[in-house]
Amino acid sequence: MSESPVQRTARGWELPGLANLHSHAFQRAMAGMAERQTDPADSFWTWRDTMYRMAARFDPDTLREVAAQLYVEMLEAGYTAVCEFHYLHHAPDGRPYDDPAAMSRALIDAARETGIRLTLLPVLYMTGGFDGRALAERQRRFGHDIDAYLRLLDTLRASQDDTLRIGCALHSLRAVPEAAMRDVLAALPGDARIHIHIAEQTAEVDECIAVRGARPVRWLLDHAPVDSRWTLVHATHLNDDEIAGIAASRATVAICTTTEGNLGDGLFPLRPFLDAGGRFGIGSDSHVSTSPVEELRWLEYGQRLVTRRRNIAVRESTSVGETLLAGVLSTAADATGQTMQGDRVVLDAGAPILAGATEGDVIDRWIFSGNRPVVQTVEVAGGERVCEGRHVDAEAIAVRYRAAIARLVA
Amino acid sequence: MSESPVQRTARGWELPGLANLHSHAFQRAMAGMAERQTDPADSFWTWRDTMYRMAARFDPDTLREVAAQLYVEMLEAGYTAVCEFHYLHHAPDGRPYDDPAAMSRALIDAARETGIRLTLLPVLYMTGGFDGRALAERQRRFGHDIDAYLRLLDTLRASQDDTLRIGCALHSLRAVPEAAMRDVLAALPGDARIHIHIAEQTAEVDECIAVRGARPVRWLLDHAPVDSRWTLVHATHLNDDEIAGIAASRATVAICTTTEGNLGDGLFPLRPFLDAGGRFGIGSDSHVSTSPVEELRWLEYGQRLVTRRRNIAVRESTSVGETLLAGVLSTAADATGQTMQGDRVVLDAGAPILAGATEGDVIDRWIFSGNRPVVQTVEVAGGERVCEGRHVDAEAIAVRYRAAIARLVA
Repeated sequence: MSESPVQRTARGWELPGLANLHSHAFQRAMAGMAERQTDPADSFWTWRDTMYRMAARFDPDTLREVAAQLYVEMLEAGYTAVCEFHYLHHAPDGRPYDDPAAMSRALIDAARETGIRLTLLPVLYMTGGFDGRALAERQRRFGHDIDAYLRLLDTLRASQDDTLRIGCALHSLRAVPEAAMRDVLAALPGDARIHIHIAEQTAEVDECIAVRGARPVRWLLDHAPVDSRWTLVHATHLNDDEIAGIAASRATVAICTTTEGNLGDGLFPLRPFLDAGGRFGIGSDSHVSTSPVEELRWLEYGQRLVTRRRNIAVRESTSVGETLLAGVLSTAADATGQTMQGDRVVLDAGAPILAGATEGDVIDRWIFSGNRPVVQTVEVAGGERVCEGRHVDAEAIAVRYRAAIARLVA
Repeated sequence: MSESPVQRTARGWELPGLANLHSHAFQRAMAGMAERQTDPADSFWTWRDTMYRMAARFDPDTLREVAAQLYVEMLEAGYTAVCEFHYLHHAPDGRPYDDPAAMSRALIDAARETGIRLTLLPVLYMTGGFDGRALAERQRRFGHDIDAYLRLLDTLRASQDDTLRIGCALHSLRAVPEAAMRDVLAALPGDARIHIHIAEQTAEVDECIAVRGARPVRWLLDHAPVDSRWTLVHATHLNDDEIAGIAASRATVAICTTTEGNLGDGLFPLRPFLDAGGRFGIGSDSHVSTSPVEELRWLEYGQRLVTRRRNIAVRESTSVGETLLAGVLSTAADATGQTMQGDRVVLDAGAPILAGATEGDVIDRWIFSGNRPVVQTVEVAGGERVCEGRHVDAEAIAVRYRAAIARLVA
């Protein structure tokens, strides 16, 4: 095991910044609003109905305010980079805004105001299912043809800088026909990051087998040049062949523990994936939690609950917390396409939950002993964004957030 | 559905105080310190070895300081009562302290200083297994004969007042022989609360079947007058007959979600238990979390992950959060033996995660949208203990806690 990523300094316990590999910023506004039964067989799919109704109310102004509040919370929790899997492109009736990049720019504005690194992944969303059917009415604001999509990426790339990268997201195999996938991948710059939702739901696995003759991850590995530039989001439902295939590809899996729990997706097969040499990161996705601690803690607890064993995600001579943190740090640059240089998170050494901590147990104590915020200072690319536990502009951003929510629920 | 337990007032969103039905206070000091592999087959049982080593270092002074810090955190999270399942009775060599109640008094002092309601449950711990073997050396400080145990209860009862009740805990069926259980139960006052660890581990279920010819919950229901004064802690491994039996008895099950996740115990069968009319509460147990939000959220998420459905713990025309909160509030007085009168928790209506909340969704938002502390004010028996999110004596207690931890890990 190499040296610890955490050091005791005069400021506290210091570690690198964490990357949040999967975010739909607008969903922050509906966190906690879909926990009421709409159907006795509530599932991911009935949740999606609620989410579509909320999505229909967003415009660039509300998206910017909600994203800014969300990014404040992420920074305060220790995330210094976020990958936005962004599909709310057009007006609610499906027509592009006068500036077709208006919604993307709202996210960029929010990231710049708060100082978080943003890897913006405009989503290609073309069909309503594996059968190639057109988008439903409520999905029309998500859609592009390939030319318009590539124009959007070109336009946005002009804004790239040290803390903003533009990548590509394929919504899912059900939303992107095979030929379109090939065309878009061929048109991307060689260093572009590519993210895709995959194998989150068993229904999706079944449909993919029925229509394309293979499980989704297997199909993707066979039909796309998956490598370390790729992030597979969820990848919950895998067989051993797919586990080995992802690991061999060097792609990162973005595990979204809290959202997968909230949506009842299922448990990612962490131990076999690590045994195969698989690479992973975490994402807060629907933002029912914005805490990396909760993502990591329950990633491990889920494994324990089904195996009735303890200390599952652990390599020899390390602890569970060290193994999980090392995993997340090792994929941040590949998944975001950013250097993550100059990103530091400082934990309050005086916090009671860290009393008596040593370099050997401080990460475990942080992850496995509570919920009280202990992140004291956060720097992104050398600039201080969180000071004494609060984002430097937290109050002003919260005021605008509350006003935006009032408009959204009006 | 009756009226909501939560109301909007000038102070914020107000609800009754929550009861924490299961605590081993000393374990707070080792939260996050057992997440390192000690054995490739790490389990509850290897965790217990680590816990025993930590337990051996406690004396009344360190126990009081650790408990005080823990109770501060509980109050700040919205708990106004705690049930202490207390078995660290004697000196490490097994001899009683000069005052045989010294360790109990340390817990009472901590509760009185912080203002939390305490239901102190001195634990009867007599044997090292179902076979009746003597306690192991490291368990000797837990043990009593029946006379000494009943004297301890008598002594402590003299201290009872409006926020302190003395009950009885039977450690587990493996630690209390049948005749001893009968004798102690016969000697208790009629209103005494009785708590017992049961069916947490499958090994315990198997041994009980082998030695006593029945599964533990079935055996208990057949051999003890289990009723609403009883709290069954964990009760993780139940068959349908046992689910129906607990529900019919009106006993409360104390579900300890975060500890059961940390220890890899297994998932409580919540949906069938609710369908049978079962009654439940929550406990933070080993204190890997002191947040009722996390206990409730992951109680629900665990069910979702194994069923691949959403909104499991829900009754018609209520939400998941309302169902869970109503369940917890409805058992608090029975399980603690306290009135819970004058206990109020006020959530900050200005917190971003509660922006735009209504009476119909505020509980869901609290439980299902994050980790940022939103408890603003807490009153116990009419006295304010938490103000602007912090316990009124938080700083002084934290200073003493850090000193106690330094002694424990020295």
